[in-house]
Amino acid sequence: MIIQLSNNIKEQEQNVLLQKLSDLNIKSNLISTQFKNYIVGIPKVDFDIRSIGNLAGIEDIHRVSDDYKLVSKKWKVNNTVIDLGDNVTIGGDELAIMAGPCSIEGEEQIENTVQHLVKNNIKIMRGGVYKPRSSPYAFRGMGMDGLKLFYKHCSENGIKVITEVMQVSQVEEMLDYVDIFQVGARNSQNFNLLDILGQVDKPVMIKRGMSGTINELLASAEYVFSNGNEKIILCERGIRTYENAYRNTLDLNAIPILKEKSHLPVIVDPSHGIGLRQHVATMALAGVMCGADGIIIETHENPEKAFSDGQQTLYYRQAEKLYQKMRLTKELVEKF
Amino acid sequence: MIIQLSNNIKEQEQNVLLQKLSDLNIKSNLISTQFKNYIVGIPKVDFDIRSIGNLAGIEDIHRVSDDYKLVSKKWKVNNTVIDLGDNVTIGGDELAIMAGPCSIEGEEQIENTVQHLVKNNIKIMRGGVYKPRSSPYAFRGMGMDGLKLFYKHCSENGIKVITEVMQVSQVEEMLDYVDIFQVGARNSQNFNLLDILGQVDKPVMIKRGMSGTINELLASAEYVFSNGNEKIILCERGIRTYENAYRNTLDLNAIPILKEKSHLPVIVDPSHGIGLRQHVATMALAGVMCGADGIIIETHENPEKAFSDGQQTLYYRQAEKLYQKMRLTKELVEKF
Amino acid sequence: MIIQLSNNIKEQEQNVLLQKLSDLNIKSNLISTQFKNYIVGIPKVDFDIRSIGNLAGIEDIHRVSDDYKLVSKKWKVNNTVIDLGDNVTIGGDELAIMAGPCSIEGEEQIENTVQHLVKNNIKIMRGGVYKPRSSPYAFRGMGMDGLKLFYKHCSENGIKVITEVMQVSQVEEMLDYVDIFQVGARNSQNFNLLDILGQVDKPVMIKRGMSGTINELLASAEYVFSNGNEKIILCERGIRTYENAYRNTLDLNAIPILKEKSHLPVIVDPSHGIGLRQHVATMALAGVMCGADGIIIETHENPEKAFSDGQQTLYYRQAEKLYQKMRLTKELVEKF
Amino acid sequence: MIIQLSNNIKEQEQNVLLQKLSDLNIKSNLISTQFKNYIVGIPKVDFDIRSIGNLAGIEDIHRVSDDYKLVSKKWKVNNTVIDLGDNVTIGGDELAIMAGPCSIEGEEQIENTVQHLVKNNIKIMRGGVYKPRSSPYAFRGMGMDGLKLFYKHCSENGIKVITEVMQVSQVEEMLDYVDIFQVGARNSQNFNLLDILGQVDKPVMIKRGMSGTINELLASAEYVFSNGNEKIILCERGIRTYENAYRNTLDLNAIPILKEKSHLPVIVDPSHGIGLRQHVATMALAGVMCGADGIIIETHENPEKAFSDGQQTLYYRQAEKLYQKMRLTKELVEKF
Repeated sequence: MIIQLSNNIKEQEQNVLLQKLSDLNIKSNLISTQFKNYIVGIPKVDFDIRSIGNLAGIEDIHRVSDDYKLVSKKWKVNNTVIDLGDNVTIGGDELAIMAGPCSIEGEEQIENTVQHLVKNNIKIMRGGVYKPRSSPYAFRGMGMDGLKLFYKHCSENGIKVITEVMQVSQVEEMLDYVDIFQVGARNSQNFNLLDILGQVDKPVMIKRGMSGTINELLASAEYVFSNGNEKIILCERGIRTYENAYRNTLDLNAIPILKEKSHLPVIVDPSHGIGLRQHVATMALAGVMCGADGIIIETHENPEKAFSDGQQTLYYRQAEKLYQKMRLTKELVEKF
Repeated sequence: MIIQLSNNIKEQEQNVLLQKLSDLNIKSNLISTQFKNYIVGIPKVDFDIRSIGNLAGIEDIHRVSDDYKLVSKKWKVNNTVIDLGDNVTIGGDELAIMAGPCSIEGEEQIENTVQHLVKNNIKIMRGGVYKPRSSPYAFRGMGMDGLKLFYKHCSENGIKVITEVMQVSQVEEMLDYVDIFQVGARNSQNFNLLDILGQVDKPVMIKRGMSGTINELLASAEYVFSNGNEKIILCERGIRTYENAYRNTLDLNAIPILKEKSHLPVIVDPSHGIGLRQHVATMALAGVMCGADGIIIETHENPEKAFSDGQQTLYYRQAEKLYQKMRLTKELVEKF
Repeated sequence: MIIQLSNNIKEQEQNVLLQKLSDLNIKSNLISTQFKNYIVGIPKVDFDIRSIGNLAGIEDIHRVSDDYKLVSKKWKVNNTVIDLGDNVTIGGDELAIMAGPCSIEGEEQIENTVQHLVKNNIKIMRGGVYKPRSSPYAFRGMGMDGLKLFYKHCSENGIKVITEVMQVSQVEEMLDYVDIFQVGARNSQNFNLLDILGQVDKPVMIKRGMSGTINELLASAEYVFSNGNEKIILCERGIRTYENAYRNTLDLNAIPILKEKSHLPVIVDPSHGIGLRQHVATMALAGVMCGADGIIIETHENPEKAFSDGQQTLYYRQAEKLYQKMRLTKELVEKF
Repeated sequence: MIIQLSNNIKEQEQNVLLQKLSDLNIKSNLISTQFKNYIVGIPKVDFDIRSIGNLAGIEDIHRVSDDYKLVSKKWKVNNTVIDLGDNVTIGGDELAIMAGPCSIEGEEQIENTVQHLVKNNIKIMRGGVYKPRSSPYAFRGMGMDGLKLFYKHCSENGIKVITEVMQVSQVEEMLDYVDIFQVGARNSQNFNLLDILGQVDKPVMIKRGMSGTINELLASAEYVFSNGNEKIILCERGIRTYENAYRNTLDLNAIPILKEKSHLPVIVDPSHGIGLRQHVATMALAGVMCGADGIIIETHENPEKAFSDGQQTLYYRQAEKLYQKMRLTKELVEKF
């Protein structure tokens, strides 16, 4: 059960309400986000919703039978639109395209990527400065130095920055240099990280775990929301199956299902999803056709020399064609 | 290695060739299809291809390093187009749409499905008369009686019939009443059935196994081809994963990969793939966007009363909208 | 619901019973096995079991809520013991060990395997004469010629024969030369084959499918039982997962679960299960510890020269040590 | 390549060595653990090992072709034995049994668990104070207050404490109150956490990820070792597959494989592995038979009232029988 509290609820009204819930043996979670106050109540037994409905200070009450609550579409039918400023949004009518290298490698690389994005009217740049790597001996990213350069060039060009955050202690130092925090597949159930990201007012994109279920992804999103941050984006990036003809199995079924179950925007990552450069574009377009709110892809001036993930990274000329095709596909989807 | 033999190769020339291969310690498989004669040679060690190349009776020689040979794109770059007669083709420029009920249930049902198809200019009707069912106590199909009715009404209306064959002994009795034999996911590696289907001159659509790999699907197709039948269609119908938010996980990654590795046409089955009526259309369209040569969907006048698979079967009005959208999507794909 | 009929039920009593069930809107399946007659009733709605219970000709009635009925432990608490004659049983107190090569390769190989088995007091020999192979160009077994030799040498030495049957038409010709029909993983849901095997009076061992669920395996067994054959053995042989450090993932969890859900004996196949010779013995012993009724392993005089599966086949000296260890492990399990 | 440095290597010798490696274009990682100094060299091209072998300050050099290096058995053939003090070891001849509740719930519960362990001569107690939970609204553990009570009662009774650490910031505060840090399945690739745990001198038990591969588990262990901590324990706790007859699929194949590839001790967690109380004992015994160095199980005075995981938790009387059986099984394994 979700209770939306009035913006002008009085402290005393709130206490009466909490007491009433307690009397009804309902476990209450008081939640304050950047937009609104809620109580998520977990009733142990069935109860008559009318016994609360008429209390003062309540705007609306919704039964939500899902395990996740605040991220469910059951109480919020309209899709969430995330505003990044400067007319860049995710979840609205326009397709959100995020592009850039797997890893930030240096200023020159940032500059030529930004140039490529500006030329193609792409508003969000991706790039990792903290890289989760299976082996401790692999390149692990440029860290804050890289991020500051990354942010500088992007902000000067009206481009928003999305980058991965790997641990709690990074959140604060990164805060001023990111527009969207990305939580990687391996951290999809790093609940402490999700807790902290719920306490800042920056959008968070959560990738589905390596073998994460739809419900687990939504539960992870619930962590962020219930900590106070409503700006959440979900991302399908391929799951682990028995098939090894591709790096991962991009699971496009997840798109319509997530859009059905949740009001949050959904992004598709075809680069990690299929992991083969020659098929990234196809899967990106299929993702748009499935109703994705955006696509995140890896592109690099010279993929063969990229520090990581070169085999799934598009050349600029390939990326350019793809941007166009994605926009045409989005137009068709809008018509349907 | 695939050796394409000349159509007018003389018996003596062929013997010389086979002897030469034997001398080179190459295991030869002489294959005669409805179109052409081939030798598939499996060399045990490296050898100089020129030592055969100049023999009489050879049209062309190709090295094919894949495990599958005749179905590989390595020797046949042009896509296979399957001609069902009456201008109905699969694998050509036009999207092949196959629609109809999960099970054939009776004459009235056949008639109203045919009417629906004619109205929408759909040229291929699906419908099962032999149904593989997990439980021996479930409805197992109308058998030959159903098939004869099914074929009668379709052929009278210029509609082609695709239906599942479950065992060797059915092939002969079904032969005159089907236009495409379908091999179901559970029989995807029923090698005896594939052998026999290679010995008839009717197209065969092979579904990917429940947890079949891309390579296994192509190897199953190789069974049919190497027995003499080049008319093969591949079908992605969802794989088994850990996720149970959907019946199966429709694996659209398979489409570009199969098109890259093989010259055979590829069909997508979104009905079994996602298994949820409200999302079948989305996945069908994504399938078209991925480059599928056709789509097979379940539709029924009254899905709620269908003998099987009702939950994933479209109402006619839903199917009609989908046909239109698929055609528009195909147009866009052609433009790209 | 399972109704066990009296052995001396009169035809008229049976008709009354069937009519009564029909009146109650219960779909009846009359089943006659080599041992007994049953009616499996699938009620559409709840009903009062007492309304049938007092009818003549009924020995016992059981509610069975599982999807599978006759193979369920819910109505038959005692484990099924399969008697192969000559004091060889499966499912009783003694561990059933089945050993032999992957493929029957010739008379000499049969002879030396039989000698190895006799020496080690192993009573069941495995060996394939019909081999399901991914590639049509691979060795597909010696067929009936091989089977006749196989059976001759075994029967002369008091050894029982287990071998794979791949299709319906083979059942009759193989019947006199096998003691146990094996259904392979790829045919685990070949329902026509299961139907026919239910109509002969020979034990049938059904392997779990490549990605078969516990419930599907039991439903496949139900096909055999409901066609009239109670002599069924279940076999865990490894499932397909994302992990590729081993050929398959031997799923030992299946053993206690199958023993809990069904009265049928359960065999473990560690050779295919893990697929690595150096670990077959370990997994075999773990299988015994899990409560398996028997173990099937691949052994060969010279695994390096085996026609198939050499990498997972034990040398005789390894197999001999394993037989001993398995027997000691079984003793310990019995003590527990 | 792993270079074991002499304990008395001089700084100047080390510099010569590092320079030589640099000249050979080998990326060097200098690693100092609580026991020893190593250089892990990642050569980009083949080189002649003799060109380094004769340098001063080197104890031994090993080629290790695996992706993981220091945790590989290729350079260290003897199994690692971890000494917890007070004659409690993991990886030696004795089976290490870890038992206790899923969650620490309060002092009384701790006391009666300790009593149960003392009575049964169990030397390691498990119990969670930081609990990773899918839902933010679920009980998340007693935290440091619980841990201090937990440690107090255990240390007073000669019992070692193993408990889960979820994030970097907890390591320091927990350090004095744990004997083994446990890294949960969801944090199996939380590389920052692994880094930090490599910098303390306390044993670390790493659970295999939800769908973690063998290689990924070993790479995670490499993170800890390469940061300076050699005291690492691996734990198989069930993987995610398509089968849902059990909570997870305990993958016992992993035991012999991990023991083959690595010198680190391996623990089996049958409680999470199969997730069904009635089958935990069977899987535990199979784990011992597979060669596990120890077993971790959940037990509780009253599982029905446990705060979490009750359905897979043993009653004390069940646990007691299991301890005995495990010891008998271990004796048999030792005989083999």
